[in-house]
Amino acid sequence: MADGIDALCYEFGAGKSAIREQFERATKLKESGAENIYDFSIGNPYVDAPPEVNESIVHALELPSVDLHGYTANRGLTYVREAIATDLRQRFGGNYSADDLVLTAGASGALTSTICALTSPGEEVIVLTPYYPEYRMFIQAWHCKCIPVATQPTTFQPDVDAIERAITPCTRMVIVNSPNNPTGAIYDEQILRDLGAMLRRKSAELDKTIYLLSDEPYREIVYDGRSNPWVAGTYSDTIVCYSYSKSLSIAGERAGYVLVPRSVINHDRVIDAILGAQRVVNTIMPSIIQRVVGECVGAPAPMDAYTRKRGLIYEGLARIGYEVVHPDGAFYLWMRALEPDEDAFSDRAFEHGLLLVASNDFGIGGYERLSYCVADETLAGCLPAFQELWDDYGGYTW
Amino acid sequence: MADGIDALCYEFGAGKSAIREQFERATKLKESGAENIYDFSIGNPYVDAPPEVNESIVHALELPSVDLHGYTANRGLTYVREAIATDLRQRFGGNYSADDLVLTAGASGALTSTICALTSPGEEVIVLTPYYPEYRMFIQAWHCKCIPVATQPTTFQPDVDAIERAITPCTRMVIVNSPNNPTGAIYDEQILRDLGAMLRRKSAELDKTIYLLSDEPYREIVYDGRSNPWVAGTYSDTIVCYSYSKSLSIAGERAGYVLVPRSVINHDRVIDAILGAQRVVNTIMPSIIQRVVGECVGAPAPMDAYTRKRGLIYEGLARIGYEVVHPDGAFYLWMRALEPDEDAFSDRAFEHGLLLVASNDFGIGGYERLSYCVADETLAGCLPAFQELWDDYGGYTW
Repeated sequence: MADGIDALCYEFGAGKSAIREQFERATKLKESGAENIYDFSIGNPYVDAPPEVNESIVHALELPSVDLHGYTANRGLTYVREAIATDLRQRFGGNYSADDLVLTAGASGALTSTICALTSPGEEVIVLTPYYPEYRMFIQAWHCKCIPVATQPTTFQPDVDAIERAITPCTRMVIVNSPNNPTGAIYDEQILRDLGAMLRRKSAELDKTIYLLSDEPYREIVYDGRSNPWVAGTYSDTIVCYSYSKSLSIAGERAGYVLVPRSVINHDRVIDAILGAQRVVNTIMPSIIQRVVGECVGAPAPMDAYTRKRGLIYEGLARIGYEVVHPDGAFYLWMRALEPDEDAFSDRAFEHGLLLVASNDFGIGGYERLSYCVADETLAGCLPAFQELWDDYGGYTW
Repeated sequence: MADGIDALCYEFGAGKSAIREQFERATKLKESGAENIYDFSIGNPYVDAPPEVNESIVHALELPSVDLHGYTANRGLTYVREAIATDLRQRFGGNYSADDLVLTAGASGALTSTICALTSPGEEVIVLTPYYPEYRMFIQAWHCKCIPVATQPTTFQPDVDAIERAITPCTRMVIVNSPNNPTGAIYDEQILRDLGAMLRRKSAELDKTIYLLSDEPYREIVYDGRSNPWVAGTYSDTIVCYSYSKSLSIAGERAGYVLVPRSVINHDRVIDAILGAQRVVNTIMPSIIQRVVGECVGAPAPMDAYTRKRGLIYEGLARIGYEVVHPDGAFYLWMRALEPDEDAFSDRAFEHGLLLVASNDFGIGGYERLSYCVADETLAGCLPAFQELWDDYGGYTW
C-alpha cells in the first residue's frame, strides 16, 4: 500500500550523511564506555558560553511570565533587533535597522527561510565546493537545483570565472560562506568585489536579480587579528544569514537571523516573503533565547580557546606529515586523506578511534574534515593515534 | 527586473490574515497609549506558566555549559522523549516509547514537518471548517491542495459522510483538531471511531494510506471534567502533533512534538522522513526548552483560570443576546456575527475597542472568534462595549 512518504525527506532523514553517521558512531561508542575515542565529527562548540548567556537567562526569569514566555511577533522582539542593528552599524557601517532583520532559529532557519522565499521550483542555486552539506538539502527541499562550482585549488577562494560559467537563465542565488566550513578559508575582499561586479553584470544581462546569500556563522571566529570582509558591503543584493551558535557557544539554542540590507531590490517585499516562509517552516526564535541575544549581542567570541585548539591540532598533524590547510577562521581542519578513497580512509581512521568526516558530503573527494571545537585533551591525546594511522599507510599513497 | 520572490511566501508574509491584522492593530493602539482596548485576537496564554517551568530553567543552568547549550540530536534528548512516552502510556495506554517521538519547535513545527514528510506535490489534505488558518499554509507550502469540508451545523462535530465524499485518489491526509480552535468543540469518540473506520475502508479501496493528523495543542484544556477522546486510539494511522504552548503557558518557547505510534504503517520510515523534513524546515526544539519539557511533562494545565475566564465571557455575552458556542475545551469563543458580513462586523466592533477575528480566515462566513486567554479585567471590562455594539445593530440583523 502506498505510504506516500516523500522520497527527498526520507533520503534526508535516513540517507547517508557522513557527519551524522560519525556522530552516531561516536555517541554509541561513548555510551558503551569505550575509551580513546577522538571525535572530530560535529561542529558543536566545546567552549563554555560567556557568562553573559546564563546571566541573561536569570535576568529574563524576573520578567512577568506572560511577557517572557508568550508569543513574540514572528520577526522577533523589536529591542533585540535594534540591538543587533546597532552592533552591525558600529562594526560594518551601513544604515542597518531593526526593520532589516528577521530573527530565526539559527542560521539553518535563516537559510531555509531565505531560499524558500526567494526561489521558485526549477531554479538553480550555486554553491562553492567544498560546501556545507546542509546547503544541498535546503536547496533541493524547495525543488531547486544545487549547482556545485569548484573553488580555486590550494587557496579554496571563490573562482569568479568558474561561477560566471555556471550561471544560466535559471540561476537565482549564489551561496558563500566565509570564514569557510570546512576549509577555514576567509574570502579575499577583492575576489568578493569581483564576484559582486560579475553578479551585477549577469543580473542585468539576464534581467533578473541574482542574490548573494552570505552564510556567516563563523564571522567572529577569525584568527591572528585578520579581518574578515563584510560581504554585504561588496554587492547590493546580498542577504546575510547569521547564527550565534558559534560566537556565543549556544549551538543547541537555535539563535540566528536574516539581514536584508536596504540596498536589496524590493527590500520590503523580500522581508515579507521571508516572514511568509518563516511561518511555513516555523523557524521562529524562542522567546527566552531572544532575550539572551538581546543582552549578549556584543559578547566577544572565545578566540583564545580556539587559537589554542587550532595550534594543538594543526601543528600536531603537520608535524606528522599530514597535508592540512591552515585555518584563518572557523574551527575546522581540512586534511588531504592518505588514500584517494576518503570513505575507506575514514573507516581506517575509525579503527584507531579517530572520527573524521569524509569529504564527499562536501561535494569533493580525497579529503577529511576535522572539527577541532573539542576538549584540549582530545586534541593533545589524539596525536599518537594519528601517528599510528600514518604509519599504517606509510604516509601518502597518492 | 524579476526579483524571484515566491508568490506563496509573499502571500503568507504580506497577505491578509485577520488574526495578524487584528494583533497588529491592537499592538499599535496599545503602544499609542489607548485605553479601553479589548484584544481577543490571538491565542497567547495570559496565565502564568506553572512554577516548574522557571524552576526547571534554573536547574538547567547548573549543567555544564557545553552540555546545556550544545547541539542535541535532531529528534531531541532521549530522557525527555522517555519522560513524554511514559506520561502518554500512563494516561492513554498504548505502548508508546521514546523512539516514537520527535521533539519539535511547537505544534506548528510538528505539523509542517509531518505534512512535508508524508505528502507529495498535488496531493490533497482535508481540513474541517472552521479550521485553524495556518493549516492552509502548511498544506500549500508543500504544493498540496487544502480541501475544506464542513463540520455538522450547531455541534461542529466532524461530518463523516461529508469527509468520505471529499476523498479522492489524491487524498493523503485528514487533519482533526480536538478540542477545537476556533469552536471549542470536543470531538465525540464514536464519531472519531466512525471516521477511523471510514478511513480504513477508503485506504484499502484506494490502496494507499490516508493518514489522520491529530493536532492536539488544547488536549489538556478541557472543562467540567469532560473526557477528551484519545484520537490515536481510534485509527491506527494517526499521527499526533502536540504543543506545550497552552498546557504550560509557554507559547513563545516553541515546545512540541510529533508522536508516530507503532501502529502507523512503515513506522520507522515515517519517523525517518519526519526527521528529514525537520532538517529541511529546522524546527528543532532548543536545548534549554527540552530540559523544561523534561521536568514539566506532567504539570497540570491551569484549568481554574480558564474556567473562570470562560464563565466571565460566555455568560456575559449570552446574557446580552449574542449567539455563542459553549466551549467544552480550548479557550476560544465562537460567536455568530450580528450581520452576515463578518469583516464589516469586525470593523464595527473595532470602533468600540473590541478586537475580534472574522471567520473567513477559518474557511466560513458569518462568525467571529474571540480568544479569551486574556486578563480577567479585559473579560469583565469588555461587556459594556459589547452591549453598545449590540445596541448599535439592535441585535441580530439576519
